[in-house]
Amino acid sequence: MGAISLKAKLATFSEHWTPKIVSSFNGHDVMVVKAEGEFTWHSHPDTDDFFLVLQGNLTIKLPDEDVHLGPGDLYVVPRGVEHCPVAHGEVHILIIEPAGTPNTGDEKTAVVKEVI
Amino acid sequence: MGAISLKAKLATFSEHWTPKIVSSFNGHDVMVVKAEGEFTWHSHPDTDDFFLVLQGNLTIKLPDEDVHLGPGDLYVVPRGVEHCPVAHGEVHILIIEPAGTPNTGDEKTAVVKEVI
Repeated sequence: MGAISLKAKLATFSEHWTPKIVSSFNGHDVMVVKAEGEFTWHSHPDTDDFFLVLQGNLTIKLPDEDVHLGPGDLYVVPRGVEHCPVAHGEVHILIIEPAGTPNTGDEKTAVVKEVI
Repeated sequence: MGAISLKAKLATFSEHWTPKIVSSFNGHDVMVVKAEGEFTWHSHPDTDDFFLVLQGNLTIKLPDEDVHLGPGDLYVVPRGVEHCPVAHGEVHILIIEPAGTPNTGDEKTAVVKEVI
């Protein structure tokens, strides 16, 4: 397996809020996602949630504050903390989570994460 | 803790091959590093090594091939695989490793990773 171009991977799909797995390391999935508009409030009880914005502007709403991220900004939502990502226009994000983590915090509503 | 600007963090230091910790999640350190020239051949027996190039061009030499990375390209060196990063000019990289992983693969020669 050679270099992975995040831009090239992002060019292969257009769905929003559907993380695609591009690599993995140490039991974690490395994913890219295209986001637009507001996701849902949720939390992950056992895992911190890594966001790195690649393009566009994202707000991560938290119970007590809003965190604003532009390109090249990262934020880790601590485990157990309720959060709601809001994408202003189309936003491209790198996300890292332990393999198998449901994107909505709930197996019943989570998307299946495809490897691309 | 708010958004972390990787560009702002990188602007605070100038040393090469000295990873600085900017965040952490799930037992891993998230680090930025400025690189120039060739590092040393090394491996990490128990951990995969995550590289995402933010600026510049990096070659990761492996026993049987060279992997070339530009901005927005990522590569995971599998655990146990000898590798030698070579930076062409100054290169800025995001690195993620379990907290405490020696950057040279050897506690005796590793740098102390400062939190910035």
